[in-house]
Amino acid sequence: MYIGQVSGTVVATIKHRMFEGHKLLLVERLDLDGAATAKYDIAVDAAQAGVGDRVLVLDEGTGARQVLNVEPWGPVRAVIVGIIDEVNTD
Amino acid sequence: MYIGQVSGTVVATIKHRMFEGHKLLLVERLDLDGAATAKYDIAVDAAQAGVGDRVLVLDEGTGARQVLNVEPWGPVRAVIVGIIDEVNTD
Amino acid sequence: MYIGQVSGTVVATIKHRMFEGHKLLLVERLDLDGAATAKYDIAVDAAQAGVGDRVLVLDEGTGARQVLNVEPWGPVRAVIVGIIDEVNTD
Amino acid sequence: MYIGQVSGTVVATIKHRMFEGHKLLLVERLDLDGAATAKYDIAVDAAQAGVGDRVLVLDEGTGARQVLNVEPWGPVRAVIVGIIDEVNTD
Amino acid sequence: MYIGQVSGTVVATIKHRMFEGHKLLLVERLDLDGAATAKYDIAVDAAQAGVGDRVLVLDEGTGARQVLNVEPWGPVRAVIVGIIDEVNTD
Repeated sequence: MYIGQVSGTVVATIKHRMFEGHKLLLVERLDLDGAATAKYDIAVDAAQAGVGDRVLVLDEGTGARQVLNVEPWGPVRAVIVGIIDEVNTD
Repeated sequence: MYIGQVSGTVVATIKHRMFEGHKLLLVERLDLDGAATAKYDIAVDAAQAGVGDRVLVLDEGTGARQVLNVEPWGPVRAVIVGIIDEVNTD
Repeated sequence: MYIGQVSGTVVATIKHRMFEGHKLLLVERLDLDGAATAKYDIAVDAAQAGVGDRVLVLDEGTGARQVLNVEPWGPVRAVIVGIIDEVNTD
Repeated sequence: MYIGQVSGTVVATIKHRMFEGHKLLLVERLDLDGAATAKYDIAVDAAQAGVGDRVLVLDEGTGARQVLNVEPWGPVRAVIVGIIDEVNTD
Repeated sequence: MYIGQVSGTVVATIKHRMFEGHKLLLVERLDLDGAATAKYDIAVDAAQAGVGDRVLVLDEGTGARQVLNVEPWGPVRAVIVGIIDEVNTD
């Protein structure tokens, strides 16, 4: 999992039923200092995240499908599983 | 998932039945600014995409097979699941 | 698997039941000389690891779920499976 | 999937039954201009490919096993699924 | 799969039963010219490999578990499946 920041929304014409009712968000991967990197994912939202939120992103298909309750098949790889409250590094 | 742009078609001699009736497209991965990167995938088309289209690409085998209705086995990793209509970044 | 160093803890609002009772740790990937790299993972702890520990990280969902006894589904990709005692290179 | 070029053969002492009767080939990953990159895979051949052939490589274990008819387990990740006849980019 | 060179052994405190009786080796990934790269894996040995050996490494969990006869679950991603005897590039 990695820490990302939601930077936009994506509108796409997809005919697969699994995407109905799910928001697609553009998530930028943050580095260890919390700065945006050039890497991004189009992730399915499972945490009511909005643009600007720092989020926990799971980038693995089987676990992502479980979060969305579409076991075991479904066209998803990355999912936003939580909102980050705090990162503590000593 | 990532945003790609279809830049070509691929013709290959493949004997596996799963590829019958499916178009193989060359998809360039776009960066956050919508510019092409050096990365590409040969993806199976599941969205009637054509050369020049901006598309949503799922790069995970299990989900890709589900989109193509070949559950749970089949020789595919990347699949074009939709046509991008709009990316909104504020 | 790779060798990492625990450099912090993560607090996140996650509603999925699997995360209850599990600590989320920020793990920096070490290179062959034991130096920190820019790569990190948010990993679930299964080895009572603490900040500063050198740990063995499994970065594959199916195996990670098995370690946590959540077979075969669960929203996890990376898990800390052990504490490194020694790396011998001749 | 990506486009590769077969650049060699590999002889290895492997005791697993799945490798009996299967050729291991060294495949260099080609970039969008058809030039070799520094990336390679040791792939199992399922398309009667030879040194010099441009091939379609599937780099995902579950699909690779299906091509080789070893469902669902087997020690393989990359497999050559076809010979490239033509790449058309306009 | 890729070609690696065993460069060390790893001792770790792991409580999972699957690791009992299995050697953990530090494997450096070799490039196309046989030179070491900065990439490494901590791999489970299934080929009686020793430090200095050039080995064939399978870096995919499902296949790796099959080699070790722990189907289908087990905390492993990379496994040494064979000893390289010869790489022929013309």
